Amino acid sequence: MSTASREIQLAARPHGEPKPTDFRLAEVELPDPGPGELLVRNTFMSVDPYMRGRMNDTKSYVPPFQLDRPLDGGAVGEVVVSNAEGLAPGDVVLHQLGWRDHAVLPGAHTRKVEADGLSESAFLGVLGMPGLTAYVGLLDIAGLREGDVVFVSGAAGAVGSLVGQIARLRGNTVIGSAGSPEKVAHLVDDLGFDAAFNYKDGPVAGQLAAAAPDGIDVYFDNVGGEHLEAALGALNRNGRVALCGAISVYNATEPPAGIRNLALAIGKRLTLRGFIVSDHFDRLPALHAEIGPALRDGRVTFRETIVEGLDQAPQAFIDLLRGGNVGKMLVKL
Amino acid sequence: MSTASREIQLAARPHGEPKPTDFRLAEVELPDPGPGELLVRNTFMSVDPYMRGRMNDTKSYVPPFQLDRPLDGGAVGEVVVSNAEGLAPGDVVLHQLGWRDHAVLPGAHTRKVEADGLSESAFLGVLGMPGLTAYVGLLDIAGLREGDVVFVSGAAGAVGSLVGQIARLRGNTVIGSAGSPEKVAHLVDDLGFDAAFNYKDGPVAGQLAAAAPDGIDVYFDNVGGEHLEAALGALNRNGRVALCGAISVYNATEPPAGIRNLALAIGKRLTLRGFIVSDHFDRLPALHAEIGPALRDGRVTFRETIVEGLDQAPQAFIDLLRGGNVGKMLVKL
Repeated sequence: MSTASREIQLAARPHGEPKPTDFRLAEVELPDPGPGELLVRNTFMSVDPYMRGRMNDTKSYVPPFQLDRPLDGGAVGEVVVSNAEGLAPGDVVLHQLGWRDHAVLPGAHTRKVEADGLSESAFLGVLGMPGLTAYVGLLDIAGLREGDVVFVSGAAGAVGSLVGQIARLRGNTVIGSAGSPEKVAHLVDDLGFDAAFNYKDGPVAGQLAAAAPDGIDVYFDNVGGEHLEAALGALNRNGRVALCGAISVYNATEPPAGIRNLALAIGKRLTLRGFIVSDHFDRLPALHAEIGPALRDGRVTFRETIVEGLDQAPQAFIDLLRGGNVGKMLVKL
Repeated sequence: MSTASREIQLAARPHGEPKPTDFRLAEVELPDPGPGELLVRNTFMSVDPYMRGRMNDTKSYVPPFQLDRPLDGGAVGEVVVSNAEGLAPGDVVLHQLGWRDHAVLPGAHTRKVEADGLSESAFLGVLGMPGLTAYVGLLDIAGLREGDVVFVSGAAGAVGSLVGQIARLRGNTVIGSAGSPEKVAHLVDDLGFDAAFNYKDGPVAGQLAAAAPDGIDVYFDNVGGEHLEAALGALNRNGRVALCGAISVYNATEPPAGIRNLALAIGKRLTLRGFIVSDHFDRLPALHAEIGPALRDGRVTFRETIVEGLDQAPQAFIDLLRGGNVGKMLVKL
């Protein structure tokens, strides 16, 4: 008794910005779960900027997606059939087989989550990979210290909005940049950022200098490019940069213009450090211990942009790369 | 009874590459040394790439040189008159008032050196600031580990040649780049580099890939620009870059082209760290303890390019920026 499911496949490798025709919705039959396996009905799936890199046929830190095969990525779902010890129908699990309605996979490749009053979607966002990215990048990679002035780009996104809130929780000053007046207002009014600006309003360097007249000590980089140059200019001596993402160049079809002022790192004694969240899953308990309570008592909040239906997932991903989300971008299945 | 001396003054701020007319040889009368002061006859003075930055009227980590005032920098000399406790005529001291035949300065601003069989010029090179730069950059900033493959640019210079030799002493594989066939031969034949190439022979990325087929783990950057891009491409996961200098852009009159592949630092988990040697003088005893014996028994060697006479100092500096030196560039006074 196989199960009918639907999945999104990669129909063509995008050139520059992805188009709807780069994706294909396919109807498939799933085999019954074997020993140790589960059948899961997915309830939410994540679209994330890093997936753009996997659509290119280039060597990277994760293997590329294959043409005519389903995409994958973070998802939560409900167990329908379980042949896995410790998991029963009705349990909610986090796993990596998103971009599909149903998944058959080993129970060992899932993690059971206890929502405990929170939406299960939180485990794809603030308590999941984006949250851990923010936590590790700010605390471990950039080494946040008392008194640091923190600047984060992509600040209204899933990662950036938590970077800012963790820094505020720790008593640091936080400046964010985002791409619309609504996002800027959200940062200051809802998330408690000390200052924020719309990078489309003018050169980033000038806006950052106005927002941080005494310079910055930490830059959490989600975008690269002009933002990174501006941050290098604004960083104080012994400043630190967590290199997390470069969304500004993910769709680039030509080599980007380049960072022209990296030599400032010498005289300013700057440290720039790249990282990948999957190296740091050991920090997940610390994230949950610090941010879980802050979420439940309202000191940390998060927004989600939720799109309905698997058929809308490609457009949700395209919109994400255009900045069409506030907070975590999700597809409800 | 004043003392007649000569000094090199900054006559004009260089635009791009310095010209002889940017400098002026002036005859001056020095006052007698006051209480606690010395009269020193300089025997060697140093010309260093970082001095080019001080000739611009821009804020940097050291204040700019002043127009119509003498330049300064590292020098060694012999005490002629001493009003300072613990120093006597005939003692050899290291100090910062180079670019002049004689200097009057507080004894507390000098450091007495015991050459102990080595040329006193060594204290301006392998046992001085360039040596400490190599030592700290490789061991503390880049965090050299067993098995690391090290790449150093400007490898035939005062800093680079010691970077390579320290790495070899520690048992690491070392690749160097330099700007002439003679320098490349010197690196391999005299200094024990495992491989070296002439960056003028073709794109750095291709030459580096051929010299380091399994990639590199540490890059000691003396030049910036194309070398840094090539190194980012060749660095293995968890690689480290010590950002020490950017001689390729010191004479630049327009913004440099920029580093286009810095986003590689994310997936490769790279760390790039800038540093200034003057923050690390506490490591001088460790440098002397490790490198002094290696110098005396020949495991470490160094070359000097020595120019004679204060009037030749400006040309020596101009030649240094053009790569006209092998090893430490000095002026004998």
